[in-house]
Amino acid sequence: MKKIIIASTSTLHGGSYLDYLLPALSVHFNHVKKLLFIPFARPSGITHDEYTRKVSEAFAQIGITVQGIHESDNPIEALENAEAIFTGGGNTFLLVSQLYKTGLMETLEKVVKNGTPYLGTSAGSNICGLTMGTTNDMPIVYPPSFNTLGFVPFNINPHYLDPIEGSTHMGETRETRINEFHHFNPQPVLGLREGSWLEVSGNKITLKGNLPARLFRKNQAPVELEPETDLSDLN
Amino acid sequence: MKKIIIASTSTLHGGSYLDYLLPALSVHFNHVKKLLFIPFARPSGITHDEYTRKVSEAFAQIGITVQGIHESDNPIEALENAEAIFTGGGNTFLLVSQLYKTGLMETLEKVVKNGTPYLGTSAGSNICGLTMGTTNDMPIVYPPSFNTLGFVPFNINPHYLDPIEGSTHMGETRETRINEFHHFNPQPVLGLREGSWLEVSGNKITLKGNLPARLFRKNQAPVELEPETDLSDLN
Repeated sequence: MKKIIIASTSTLHGGSYLDYLLPALSVHFNHVKKLLFIPFARPSGITHDEYTRKVSEAFAQIGITVQGIHESDNPIEALENAEAIFTGGGNTFLLVSQLYKTGLMETLEKVVKNGTPYLGTSAGSNICGLTMGTTNDMPIVYPPSFNTLGFVPFNINPHYLDPIEGSTHMGETRETRINEFHHFNPQPVLGLREGSWLEVSGNKITLKGNLPARLFRKNQAPVELEPETDLSDLN
Repeated sequence: MKKIIIASTSTLHGGSYLDYLLPALSVHFNHVKKLLFIPFARPSGITHDEYTRKVSEAFAQIGITVQGIHESDNPIEALENAEAIFTGGGNTFLLVSQLYKTGLMETLEKVVKNGTPYLGTSAGSNICGLTMGTTNDMPIVYPPSFNTLGFVPFNINPHYLDPIEGSTHMGETRETRINEFHHFNPQPVLGLREGSWLEVSGNKITLKGNLPARLFRKNQAPVELEPETDLSDLN
Protein backbone atom coordinates (compact mmCIF):
# COMPACT_ATOMS: atom_id res chain seq x y z
CA MET A 1 0.00 0.00 0.00
CA LYS A 2 1.47 3.33 -1.08
CA LYS A 3 2.48 5.71 1.73
CA ILE A 4 3.78 8.93 0.29
CA ILE A 5 4.18 12.61 1.13
CA ILE A 6 4.61 14.93 -1.86
CA ALA A 7 5.60 18.39 -0.58
CA SER A 8 5.83 21.61 -2.58
CA THR A 9 8.93 22.79 -0.74
CA SER A 10 11.38 21.63 1.92
CA THR A 11 11.56 25.00 3.58
CA LEU A 12 9.17 27.86 4.30
CA HIS A 13 10.30 31.47 4.24
CA GLY A 14 11.79 32.29 7.65
CA GLY A 15 11.79 28.63 8.70
CA SER A 16 14.56 26.04 8.81
CA TYR A 17 14.97 22.99 6.62
CA LEU A 18 11.90 20.68 6.83
CA ASP A 19 10.77 22.13 10.18
CA TYR A 20 7.16 22.83 9.14
CA LEU A 21 6.82 19.21 8.00
CA LEU A 22 8.41 17.46 11.00
CA PRO A 23 5.12 16.84 12.86
CA ALA A 24 3.65 15.17 9.77
CA LEU A 25 6.89 13.28 9.15
CA SER A 26 6.91 11.89 12.71
CA VAL A 27 3.63 10.21 11.90
CA HIS A 28 4.49 9.32 8.29
CA PHE A 29 7.80 7.72 9.28
CA ASN A 30 6.49 6.18 12.53
CA HIS A 31 8.74 3.23 13.55
CA VAL A 32 11.33 4.16 10.88
CA LYS A 33 14.85 4.13 12.32
CA LYS A 34 16.87 4.72 9.18
CA LEU A 35 16.01 6.71 6.07
CA LEU A 36 17.63 6.30 2.65
CA PHE A 37 18.22 9.71 1.07
CA ILE A 38 18.51 10.44 -2.66
CA PRO A 39 20.62 13.62 -2.96
CA PHE A 40 20.91 13.69 -6.77
CA ALA A 41 19.10 17.01 -7.37
CA ARG A 42 21.93 18.94 -5.65
CA PRO A 43 20.34 22.36 -4.91
CA SER A 44 22.81 25.18 -5.67
CA GLY A 45 25.19 22.43 -6.77
CA ILE A 46 26.05 21.21 -3.23
CA THR A 47 27.72 17.81 -3.04
CA HIS A 48 25.91 14.58 -2.23
CA ASP A 49 27.76 14.45 1.10
CA GLU A 50 26.89 18.02 2.08
CA TYR A 51 23.27 17.51 1.16
CA THR A 52 23.05 14.27 3.12
CA ARG A 53 24.54 15.99 6.18
CA LYS A 54 21.90 18.72 6.00
CA VAL A 55 19.12 16.15 5.80
CA SER A 56 20.61 14.10 8.66
CA GLU A 57 20.49 17.15 10.93
CA ALA A 58 16.81 17.70 10.22
CA PHE A 59 15.81 14.07 10.75
CA ALA A 60 17.89 13.76 13.92
CA GLN A 61 15.17 15.92 15.52
CA ILE A 62 12.66 13.10 15.12
CA GLY A 63 15.09 10.31 15.95
CA ILE A 64 15.76 9.05 12.41
CA THR A 65 19.25 8.46 11.00
CA VAL A 66 19.96 9.12 7.33
CA GLN A 67 22.12 7.36 4.77
CA GLY A 68 22.84 8.84 1.34
CA ILE A 69 22.21 6.40 -1.51
CA HIS A 70 25.51 7.55 -3.07
CA GLU A 71 27.35 5.94 -0.13
CA SER A 72 26.05 2.52 -1.07
CA ASP A 73 28.03 -0.03 -3.12
CA ASN A 74 24.78 -1.40 -4.46
CA PRO A 75 22.19 1.39 -4.72
CA ILE A 76 19.51 -0.85 -6.21
CA GLU A 77 19.79 -3.20 -3.25
CA ALA A 78 19.81 -0.20 -0.92
CA LEU A 79 16.47 0.92 -2.37
CA GLU A 80 15.04 -2.57 -2.14
CA ASN A 81 16.03 -2.89 1.51
CA ALA A 82 15.24 0.69 2.59
CA GLU A 83 12.90 1.21 5.53
CA ALA A 84 11.91 4.57 4.03
CA ILE A 85 13.06 6.88 1.23
CA PHE A 86 13.42 10.64 0.82
CA THR A 87 14.24 12.44 -2.43
CA GLY A 88 15.25 16.05 -1.83
CA GLY A 89 14.81 19.11 -4.02
CA GLY A 90 17.22 20.84 -6.37
CA ASN A 91 17.29 20.53 -10.15
CA THR A 92 14.73 18.10 -11.60
CA PHE A 93 16.63 17.61 -14.89
CA LEU A 94 19.69 16.53 -12.94
CA LEU A 95 17.68 14.30 -10.61
CA VAL A 96 15.86 12.53 -13.44
CA SER A 97 19.08 12.13 -15.45
CA GLN A 98 20.81 10.51 -12.49
CA LEU A 99 17.88 8.22 -11.69
CA TYR A 100 17.90 6.91 -15.27
CA LYS A 101 21.70 6.76 -15.58
CA THR A 102 22.04 4.73 -12.38
CA GLY A 103 19.14 2.46 -13.33
CA LEU A 104 17.34 3.41 -10.11
CA MET A 105 14.15 4.88 -11.59
CA GLU A 106 12.50 1.51 -12.09
CA THR A 107 13.43 0.15 -8.67
CA LEU A 108 12.31 3.35 -6.93
CA GLU A 109 8.94 3.07 -8.66
CA LYS A 110 8.57 -0.57 -7.68
CA VAL A 111 9.46 -0.30 -3.99
CA VAL A 112 7.35 2.81 -3.34
CA LYS A 113 4.35 1.33 -5.16
CA ASN A 114 4.86 -1.76 -2.98
CA GLY A 115 4.68 0.28 0.22
CA THR A 116 8.09 1.67 1.21
CA PRO A 117 7.23 5.03 2.83
CA TYR A 118 8.40 7.91 0.63
CA LEU A 119 8.89 11.64 1.03
CA GLY A 120 9.53 14.01 -1.85
CA THR A 121 10.12 17.75 -1.69
CA SER A 122 10.27 20.07 -4.70
CA ALA A 123 12.20 18.16 -7.43
CA GLY A 124 11.62 15.00 -5.35
CA SER A 125 7.89 15.76 -5.64
CA ASN A 126 7.97 16.60 -9.32
CA ILE A 127 9.06 13.04 -10.05
CA CYS A 128 5.98 11.66 -8.27
CA GLY A 129 3.80 12.83 -11.16
CA LEU A 130 3.42 11.26 -14.59
CA THR A 131 6.15 13.40 -16.13
CA MET A 132 8.59 16.13 -15.14
CA GLY A 133 6.98 18.34 -17.80
CA THR A 134 5.75 20.89 -15.24
CA THR A 135 8.99 21.48 -13.38
CA ASN A 136 10.14 25.09 -12.90
CA ASP A 137 13.81 24.15 -13.24
CA MET A 138 16.40 25.07 -15.82
CA PRO A 139 17.39 22.28 -18.26
CA ILE A 140 21.04 22.17 -17.15
CA VAL A 141 21.50 18.55 -18.30
CA TYR A 142 19.64 16.43 -20.89
CA PRO A 143 17.74 13.51 -19.35
CA PRO A 144 16.97 10.39 -21.45
CA SER A 145 13.23 10.92 -20.87
CA PHE A 146 10.81 13.28 -19.13
CA ASN A 147 8.72 10.34 -17.85
CA THR A 148 8.70 9.97 -14.09
CA LEU A 149 7.30 7.73 -11.37
CA GLY A 150 3.54 8.21 -11.65
CA PHE A 151 2.80 7.75 -7.95
CA VAL A 152 -0.16 10.02 -8.66
CA PRO A 153 -2.00 9.96 -12.03
CA PHE A 154 -1.41 13.64 -12.78
CA ASN A 155 1.47 16.16 -12.83
CA ILE A 156 2.82 18.25 -9.97
CA ASN A 157 3.92 21.87 -10.15
CA PRO A 158 5.79 22.51 -6.90
CA HIS A 159 6.51 26.02 -5.56
CA TYR A 160 3.34 27.10 -7.34
CA LEU A 161 3.49 30.88 -7.66
CA ASP A 162 0.56 33.20 -8.25
CA PRO A 163 1.07 36.03 -10.76
CA ILE A 164 2.85 38.90 -9.00
CA GLU A 165 0.57 41.95 -8.93
CA GLY A 166 2.03 45.02 -10.52
CA SER A 167 4.94 43.08 -12.04
CA THR A 168 6.44 44.68 -15.15
CA HIS A 169 8.24 41.46 -16.13
CA MET A 170 7.16 40.13 -19.53
CA GLY A 171 8.28 36.50 -19.08
CA GLU A 172 5.39 34.03 -18.83
CA THR A 173 3.49 33.57 -15.57
CA ARG A 174 3.33 30.09 -14.07
CA GLU A 175 -0.30 29.81 -15.15
CA THR A 176 0.58 30.68 -18.76
CA ARG A 177 3.30 28.03 -18.75
CA ILE A 178 0.93 25.37 -17.46
CA ASN A 179 -1.64 26.35 -20.08
CA GLU A 180 1.05 25.89 -22.74
CA PHE A 181 1.74 22.44 -21.24
CA HIS A 182 -1.92 21.57 -21.77
CA HIS A 183 -1.71 22.26 -25.48
CA PHE A 184 0.45 19.14 -25.74
CA ASN A 185 -0.38 16.99 -22.70
CA PRO A 186 -3.72 15.71 -21.39
CA GLN A 187 -3.08 15.11 -17.67
CA PRO A 188 -4.21 17.48 -14.90
CA VAL A 189 -1.54 19.62 -13.21
CA LEU A 190 -1.73 20.39 -9.52
CA GLY A 191 -0.06 23.65 -8.50
CA LEU A 192 1.11 23.10 -4.91
CA ARG A 193 1.89 26.34 -3.08
CA GLU A 194 4.78 26.41 -0.63
CA GLY A 195 3.46 24.91 2.60
CA SER A 196 1.10 22.45 0.89
CA TRP A 197 1.64 18.75 0.44
CA LEU A 198 -0.19 15.67 -0.75
CA GLU A 199 -0.64 12.66 1.46
CA VAL A 200 -0.99 9.44 -0.49
CA SER A 201 -2.26 6.46 1.47
CA GLY A 202 -3.00 3.51 -0.77
CA ASN A 203 -5.32 4.93 -3.42
CA LYS A 204 -6.39 7.87 -1.29
CA ILE A 205 -4.82 11.26 -2.09
CA THR A 206 -5.47 14.20 0.24
CA LEU A 207 -4.35 17.83 0.08
CA LYS A 208 -2.63 18.88 3.31
CA GLY A 209 -1.27 22.13 4.79
CA ASN A 210 -3.05 25.45 5.33
CA LEU A 211 -3.25 26.71 1.76
CA PRO A 212 -5.50 25.96 -1.18
CA ALA A 213 -3.91 24.34 -4.25
CA ARG A 214 -4.62 25.34 -7.84
CA LEU A 215 -5.83 22.65 -10.21
CA PHE A 216 -5.35 23.01 -13.96
CA ARG A 217 -7.14 20.75 -16.41
CA LYS A 218 -6.88 20.84 -20.17
CA ASN A 219 -9.54 23.11 -21.72
CA GLN A 220 -10.99 24.06 -18.34
CA ALA A 221 -10.68 27.12 -16.13
CA PRO A 222 -8.35 26.51 -13.16
CA VAL A 223 -9.97 25.93 -9.78
CA GLU A 224 -8.86 26.38 -6.17
CA LEU A 225 -8.97 23.33 -3.91
CA GLU A 226 -9.22 23.69 -0.16
CA PRO A 227 -7.01 21.77 2.30
CA GLU A 228 -8.29 18.26 3.06
CA THR A 229 -9.74 17.96 -0.46
CA ASP A 230 -9.82 14.31 -1.54
CA LEU A 231 -7.99 14.01 -4.89
CA SER A 232 -8.27 10.25 -5.24
CA ASP A 233 -10.38 10.51 -8.40
CA LEU A 234 -8.24 13.13 -10.14
CA ASN A 235 -6.79 11.87 -13.40
CA MET B 1 28.94 37.61 -42.82
CA LYS B 2 26.57 37.05 -39.88
CA LYS B 3 23.99 39.79 -39.32
CA ILE B 4 21.91 38.98 -36.28
CA ILE B 5 19.84 40.63 -33.55
CA ILE B 6 19.32 38.57 -30.40
CA ALA B 7 16.70 40.28 -28.22
CA SER B 8 15.73 39.42 -24.66
CA THR B 9 12.04 40.08 -25.27
CA SER B 10 9.66 41.04 -28.06
CA THR B 11 7.67 43.42 -25.91
CA LEU B 12 8.40 45.85 -23.10
CA HIS B 13 5.95 46.42 -20.26
CA GLY B 14 3.40 48.98 -21.41
CA GLY B 15 4.61 48.81 -25.02
CA SER B 16 3.23 47.03 -28.04
CA TYR B 17 4.71 44.06 -29.87
CA LEU B 18 8.27 44.80 -31.11
CA ASP B 19 7.75 48.59 -30.96
CA TYR B 20 10.90 49.37 -28.94
CA LEU B 21 12.97 47.44 -31.50
CA LEU B 22 11.50 48.87 -34.70
CA PRO B 23 14.11 51.63 -35.13
CA ALA B 24 16.92 49.06 -34.85
CA LEU B 25 15.03 46.65 -37.12
CA SER B 26 14.62 49.31 -39.83
CA VAL B 27 18.39 49.45 -40.04
CA HIS B 28 18.97 45.72 -39.50
CA PHE B 29 16.49 44.75 -42.23
CA ASN B 30 17.38 47.62 -44.55
CA HIS B 31 16.34 46.73 -48.15
CA VAL B 32 14.44 43.64 -46.94
CA LYS B 33 10.99 43.46 -48.54
CA LYS B 34 9.84 40.08 -47.24
CA LEU B 35 10.62 38.33 -43.98
CA LEU B 36 10.30 34.60 -43.31
CA PHE B 37 8.80 34.00 -39.87
CA ILE B 38 9.26 30.87 -37.74
CA PRO B 39 6.19 30.70 -35.42
CA PHE B 40 6.95 27.30 -33.84
CA ALA B 41 7.33 28.52 -30.23
CA ARG B 42 3.59 29.41 -30.05
CA PRO B 43 3.41 31.71 -26.98
CA SER B 44 0.31 30.88 -24.90
CA GLY B 45 -0.35 28.15 -27.45
CA ILE B 46 -1.55 30.50 -30.24
CA THR B 47 -1.67 28.98 -33.73
CA HIS B 48 1.00 29.46 -36.35
CA ASP B 49 -1.46 31.55 -38.39
CA GLU B 50 -2.43 33.81 -35.49
CA TYR B 51 1.19 34.33 -34.54
CA THR B 52 2.17 35.16 -38.11
CA ARG B 53 -0.66 37.70 -38.34
CA LYS B 54 0.58 39.44 -35.19
CA VAL B 55 4.11 39.62 -36.56
CA SER B 56 2.87 40.89 -39.94
CA GLU B 57 1.11 43.81 -38.26
CA ALA B 58 4.30 44.85 -36.47
CA PHE B 59 6.52 44.63 -39.55
CA ALA B 60 3.96 46.45 -41.73
CA GLN B 61 5.01 49.58 -39.80
CA ILE B 62 8.45 49.40 -41.39
CA GLY B 63 7.25 48.30 -44.81
CA ILE B 64 8.16 44.61 -44.58
CA THR B 65 5.75 41.80 -45.45
CA VAL B 66 5.84 38.53 -43.50
CA GLN B 67 5.37 34.92 -44.53
CA GLY B 68 5.06 32.10 -41.99
CA ILE B 69 7.37 29.17 -42.72
CA HIS B 70 4.45 26.81 -41.96
CA GLU B 71 2.71 28.13 -45.09
CA SER B 72 5.51 26.84 -47.31
CA ASP B 73 5.36 23.51 -49.17
CA ASN B 74 9.12 23.27 -48.89
CA PRO B 75 10.30 24.92 -45.66
CA ILE B 76 13.97 24.05 -46.25
CA GLU B 77 13.88 25.80 -49.60
CA ALA B 78 12.00 28.70 -48.01
CA LEU B 79 14.86 29.14 -45.52
CA GLU B 80 17.47 28.88 -48.24
CA ASN B 81 15.74 31.55 -50.33
CA ALA B 82 14.68 33.86 -47.49
CA GLU B 83 15.72 37.51 -47.66
CA ALA B 84 15.61 37.59 -43.84
CA ILE B 85 14.41 35.39 -40.97
CA PHE B 86 12.67 36.04 -37.65
CA THR B 87 12.10 33.40 -34.94
CA GLY B 88 9.59 34.58 -32.35
CA GLY B 89 9.31 33.77 -28.65
CA GLY B 90 7.15 31.28 -26.82
CA ASN B 91 8.22 27.89 -25.51
CA THR B 92 11.84 26.96 -26.29
CA PHE B 93 11.28 23.21 -25.82
CA LEU B 94 8.52 23.32 -28.41
CA LEU B 95 10.55 25.49 -30.79
CA VAL B 96 13.63 23.26 -30.62
CA SER B 97 11.54 20.09 -30.98
CA GLN B 98 9.88 21.47 -34.11
CA LEU B 99 13.15 22.67 -35.64
CA TYR B 100 14.62 19.19 -35.26
CA LYS B 101 11.49 17.31 -36.27
CA THR B 102 11.14 19.35 -39.48
CA GLY B 103 14.86 19.04 -40.23
CA LEU B 104 15.17 22.83 -40.31
CA MET B 105 17.74 23.28 -37.55
CA GLU B 106 20.70 22.52 -39.78
CA THR B 107 19.52 24.71 -42.67
CA LEU B 108 18.73 27.60 -40.35
CA GLU B 109 22.24 27.41 -38.93
CA LYS B 110 23.78 27.33 -42.39
CA VAL B 111 21.90 30.22 -43.96
CA VAL B 112 22.29 32.57 -41.00
CA LYS B 113 26.00 31.78 -40.68
CA ASN B 114 26.24 32.54 -44.40
CA GLY B 115 24.69 35.97 -43.94
CA THR B 116 20.88 35.87 -44.11
CA PRO B 117 19.81 38.61 -41.65
CA TYR B 118 18.20 37.10 -38.55
CA LEU B 119 16.16 38.34 -35.63
CA GLY B 120 15.40 36.29 -32.54
CA THR B 121 13.32 37.29 -29.54
CA SER B 122 13.06 35.32 -26.30
CA ALA B 123 12.90 31.61 -27.33
CA GLY B 124 14.14 32.70 -30.78
CA SER B 125 17.15 34.20 -28.97
CA ASN B 126 17.73 31.24 -26.71
CA ILE B 127 18.43 29.11 -29.77
CA CYS B 128 21.20 31.51 -30.88
CA GLY B 129 23.40 30.24 -28.05
CA LEU B 130 25.31 26.96 -27.84
CA THR B 131 22.46 25.15 -26.08
CA MET B 132 18.95 25.82 -24.81
CA GLY B 133 20.19 24.84 -21.34
CA THR B 134 19.52 28.30 -19.90
CA THR B 135 15.94 28.77 -21.05
CA ASN B 136 13.33 29.78 -18.46
CA ASP B 137 10.61 27.73 -20.11
CA MET B 138 8.69 24.72 -18.94
CA PRO B 139 9.63 21.37 -20.58
CA ILE B 140 6.19 20.82 -22.13
CA VAL B 141 7.57 18.57 -24.90
CA TYR B 142 10.76 16.46 -25.11
CA PRO B 143 13.19 17.68 -27.78
CA PRO B 144 15.70 15.26 -29.36
CA SER B 145 18.60 17.44 -28.13
CA PHE B 146 19.27 20.63 -26.18
CA ASN B 147 21.93 21.72 -28.69
CA THR B 148 21.09 24.86 -30.60
CA LEU B 149 22.49 27.11 -33.31
CA GLY B 150 25.65 28.54 -31.75
CA PHE B 151 25.48 31.91 -33.53
CA VAL B 152 27.33 33.18 -30.44
CA PRO B 153 29.86 31.01 -28.56
CA PHE B 154 28.04 31.20 -25.23
CA ASN B 155 24.53 30.74 -23.82
CA ILE B 156 21.73 33.28 -23.61
CA ASN B 157 19.33 33.74 -20.70
CA PRO B 158 16.55 35.97 -22.04
CA HIS B 159 14.13 37.87 -19.76
CA TYR B 160 16.93 37.94 -17.21
CA LEU B 161 15.35 38.72 -13.86
CA ASP B 162 17.12 40.11 -10.80
CA PRO B 163 16.19 38.59 -7.44
CA ILE B 164 12.99 40.24 -6.17
CA GLU B 165 13.72 42.15 -2.97
CA GLY B 166 11.62 41.06 -0.04
CA SER B 167 10.30 37.99 -1.86
CA THR B 168 9.19 35.17 0.43
CA HIS B 169 9.19 32.62 -2.41
CA MET B 170 11.60 29.75 -1.82
CA GLY B 171 11.98 28.61 -5.46
CA GLU B 172 15.45 29.25 -6.91
CA THR B 173 16.40 32.72 -8.18
CA ARG B 174 17.55 33.04 -11.77
CA GLU B 175 21.12 33.50 -10.57
CA THR B 176 20.97 30.29 -8.52
CA ARG B 177 19.69 28.39 -11.56
CA ILE B 178 22.49 29.69 -13.76
CA ASN B 179 25.03 28.77 -11.10
CA GLU B 180 23.61 25.24 -11.10
CA PHE B 181 24.02 25.22 -14.90
CA HIS B 182 27.69 26.01 -14.44
CA HIS B 183 28.24 22.91 -12.32
CA PHE B 184 27.70 20.88 -15.49
CA ASN B 185 28.48 23.20 -18.40
CA PRO B 186 31.55 25.33 -19.18
CA GLN B 187 30.23 28.10 -21.44
CA PRO B 188 29.50 31.65 -20.26
CA VAL B 189 25.86 32.66 -19.86
CA LEU B 190 24.70 36.15 -20.71
CA GLY B 191 21.63 37.32 -18.79
CA LEU B 192 19.87 39.77 -21.10
CA ARG B 193 17.36 42.00 -19.29
CA GLU B 194 14.15 42.96 -21.05
CA GLY B 195 15.04 45.85 -23.36
CA SER B 196 18.57 44.59 -24.11
CA TRP B 197 19.73 42.89 -27.26
CA LEU B 198 22.91 41.70 -28.93
CA GLU B 199 23.93 42.90 -32.34
CA VAL B 200 26.08 40.39 -34.20
CA SER B 201 27.87 41.73 -37.25
CA GLY B 202 30.32 39.20 -38.65
CA ASN B 203 32.48 38.29 -35.66
CA LYS B 204 31.63 41.44 -33.73
CA ILE B 205 29.11 41.11 -30.90
CA THR B 206 27.83 44.27 -29.18
CA LEU B 207 25.42 44.75 -26.28
CA LYS B 208 22.61 47.14 -27.20
CA GLY B 209 19.71 48.85 -25.39
CA ASN B 210 19.74 51.01 -22.27
CA LEU B 211 20.37 48.38 -19.61
CA PRO B 212 23.45 46.54 -18.40
CA ALA B 213 23.56 42.77 -18.96
CA ARG B 214 24.73 40.25 -16.35
CA LEU B 215 27.53 37.90 -17.34
CA PHE B 216 27.98 34.57 -15.58
CA ARG B 217 31.11 32.50 -16.00
CA LYS B 218 31.88 29.17 -14.40
CA ASN B 219 33.69 29.60 -11.07
CA GLN B 220 33.66 33.39 -11.28
CA ALA B 221 31.54 36.08 -9.66
CA PRO B 222 28.95 37.52 -12.08
CA VAL B 223 29.68 40.92 -13.57
CA GLU B 224 27.54 43.71 -15.00
CA LEU B 225 28.29 44.80 -18.57
CA GLU B 226 27.34 48.27 -19.78
CA PRO B 227 25.52 48.93 -23.09
CA GLU B 228 27.88 49.05 -26.09
CA THR B 229 30.21 46.52 -24.47
CA ASP B 230 32.06 44.52 -27.12
CA LEU B 231 31.50 40.80 -26.47
CA SER B 232 33.39 39.51 -29.49
CA ASP B 233 35.96 37.70 -27.35
CA LEU B 234 33.50 36.10 -24.94
CA ASN B 235 33.63 32.32 -25.04
